[in-house]
Amino acid sequence: MKRPVITLLTDFGLADHYVGAMKGTILSICPDAQLVDISHEIAPYAIAEAAYTLSQAWTCFPPGTVHLAVVDPGVGTARRPILVEAAGHHFVAPDNGVLTMVYDAVPDHEALEITASRFFGRPVSRTFHGRDIFAPVAAHLANGLAPDEFGNRVGDPLRPGFSKPTSTGPKTWAATILKVDRFGNLITNLHSESWQRLAAEPFEMRVGTCLVTRMASNYGEMEPGDPFVIMGSGGFLEVSLNQGSAANATGVRSGDRVELRLL
Amino acid sequence: MKRPVITLLTDFGLADHYVGAMKGTILSICPDAQLVDISHEIAPYAIAEAAYTLSQAWTCFPPGTVHLAVVDPGVGTARRPILVEAAGHHFVAPDNGVLTMVYDAVPDHEALEITASRFFGRPVSRTFHGRDIFAPVAAHLANGLAPDEFGNRVGDPLRPGFSKPTSTGPKTWAATILKVDRFGNLITNLHSESWQRLAAEPFEMRVGTCLVTRMASNYGEMEPGDPFVIMGSGGFLEVSLNQGSAANATGVRSGDRVELRLL
Amino acid sequence: MKRPVITLLTDFGLADHYVGAMKGTILSICPDAQLVDISHEIAPYAIAEAAYTLSQAWTCFPPGTVHLAVVDPGVGTARRPILVEAAGHHFVAPDNGVLTMVYDAVPDHEALEITASRFFGRPVSRTFHGRDIFAPVAAHLANGLAPDEFGNRVGDPLRPGFSKPTSTGPKTWAATILKVDRFGNLITNLHSESWQRLAAEPFEMRVGTCLVTRMASNYGEMEPGDPFVIMGSGGFLEVSLNQGSAANATGVRSGDRVELRLL
Repeated sequence: MKRPVITLLTDFGLADHYVGAMKGTILSICPDAQLVDISHEIAPYAIAEAAYTLSQAWTCFPPGTVHLAVVDPGVGTARRPILVEAAGHHFVAPDNGVLTMVYDAVPDHEALEITASRFFGRPVSRTFHGRDIFAPVAAHLANGLAPDEFGNRVGDPLRPGFSKPTSTGPKTWAATILKVDRFGNLITNLHSESWQRLAAEPFEMRVGTCLVTRMASNYGEMEPGDPFVIMGSGGFLEVSLNQGSAANATGVRSGDRVELRLL
Repeated sequence: MKRPVITLLTDFGLADHYVGAMKGTILSICPDAQLVDISHEIAPYAIAEAAYTLSQAWTCFPPGTVHLAVVDPGVGTARRPILVEAAGHHFVAPDNGVLTMVYDAVPDHEALEITASRFFGRPVSRTFHGRDIFAPVAAHLANGLAPDEFGNRVGDPLRPGFSKPTSTGPKTWAATILKVDRFGNLITNLHSESWQRLAAEPFEMRVGTCLVTRMASNYGEMEPGDPFVIMGSGGFLEVSLNQGSAANATGVRSGDRVELRLL
Repeated sequence: MKRPVITLLTDFGLADHYVGAMKGTILSICPDAQLVDISHEIAPYAIAEAAYTLSQAWTCFPPGTVHLAVVDPGVGTARRPILVEAAGHHFVAPDNGVLTMVYDAVPDHEALEITASRFFGRPVSRTFHGRDIFAPVAAHLANGLAPDEFGNRVGDPLRPGFSKPTSTGPKTWAATILKVDRFGNLITNLHSESWQRLAAEPFEMRVGTCLVTRMASNYGEMEPGDPFVIMGSGGFLEVSLNQGSAANATGVRSGDRVELRLL
């Protein structure tokens, strides 16, 4: 008998009791769960960063895994809790776009709104749905309950635009910084496969206080101190600096907009 | 067969080998343990913060869980190691007050002093009882050993005063900041249920450099920049700031004292 | 049936998806693994720090444990991936010295080069061998595959000199700081047992901007503010400060060199 895997992704940090409380709730319902942290250090309320981080990890897990993604600036408002099935995985999250990149990767996903309050903690607090709604639903799913026990299908989960750049003119695009990694690299939403031509065509990318005009194929070929564009390991173009932090050099942060122009 | 759950709460941080060494010790004795971190980011030696953090998490776990709480400024001195049973849970900790809020929540708890050195690592170091005493005792408990194998009952575990405010006059109280959360909210030891009247009665709370005079029912109703009191999700009054850190605004830290006066 | 234990030690940090991706990869191959983090907060590329941290933790785990150590500045270059057996434990790591202190502790260890690419993820990325090579090999080992399935024995794993001081004259030695712990203590590579005489003999240790001339047997006997040498819990001499950070006082960091002279 394989133990069911439940992953956790939040912006709760590790100093407080929140993650422990969610895990205790899960184990009270599904004692056999194999609990795996993706990250709890998502910047507070940074939905795009959470979506990117989840997109880089979930495909490594076995089918049947339940992924909990609780980055939830709208907790206590009318935003829906949702349950999504995609490629044999289950996702439990607030319907705020944190699963956008799952929808991009698996077009034939199915989403339902979680309404079956008989599975929720009692009482449901105003501020901690991670413990009171999302953790118990994930645990019951891991126990083998069918998704349609939790609510009805919905066709319109929220898909904010951050996962793809926006065309703003014949040769210009507005892109978004999905995440700043621990080395200060700026991960954009420009998919590497779609933008390979930047290696050959002249371009300008306005990144905060800097104008970036070169694409590198590896770090070593660039001078320290000059920001450049490189294909990152996550499948997106990254703005990087040899021996330095591109975030510090440009003043740009997670969620910020950068402008790309082909010359 | 359910796997026994052991939770860990320490001030060891995650950069060093300490938590890993404790977990290896546990798994050498109880290979089937389900290990769950509550937090390892308690401020060094901050017993009140550890007590509060534990109090918010342990009740989410299933009965039978063993909770290890190793925040231990007195390691190497004569302070006792203790084992506490409360509401079907077991707690293993130094006898320094870190379990105070468990005693508050479960008046009919039972405590015993851990003396059975046959269960300890050999030799017991002067500085790392987490690995040499507390981890092995927790693991043997999780294996099903009866608590009275570890020592004799004691009636006087240490109960420092931090879990409740002190009356300092007919209309004045001294309260303690149990914890500063990651957003800079100051969690007091003023139980929300006992102090609901602050919503209606005029009061002054001296919090470091600030005088707080308003209670809010939600964040949005207050101006950015003005500290206020609010009922926190943990059951205690918190001093908060809309869009800011109350800790920074007031200069107050975990363990500090604040003064409340009814007008 | 005992669940196989796999420990993880990296410099990936906990904010990004890297550790989660490795764990998902492991569980896809070995669903029953008991995963334990040693640390993911090793300073980027700090091989000596990783070697020290691993040395303090692995001996606490039961025989049969698989230890993954991925601190890998040479990823993408020709450095070999290796598999080491020592004292009934298995170690999977890049061959860059991160296992040096395992070799010191277990002289009759055996090492082999990992070449069996049929176990690797496909395609193997240039930058994330933790996910694509080391995690799958560890998982297959935990499943019970014999080490010689993964490659051929090698007799020359890399052993950088950082684990022992170097004699630089009749009464002088160059030592290395293996790690700065969270309190700012500087852990040297001077083994306590070999250097007990510093308690009795006059000496000078040049540590960054400070000259240290005293050995203490406990913290309390020293004045706040004066750095001193003390036998640390990890078996090595440490440079410490009563109520302060020796790292801040001396300006010394992980990997730096200090000079010892007997007078």
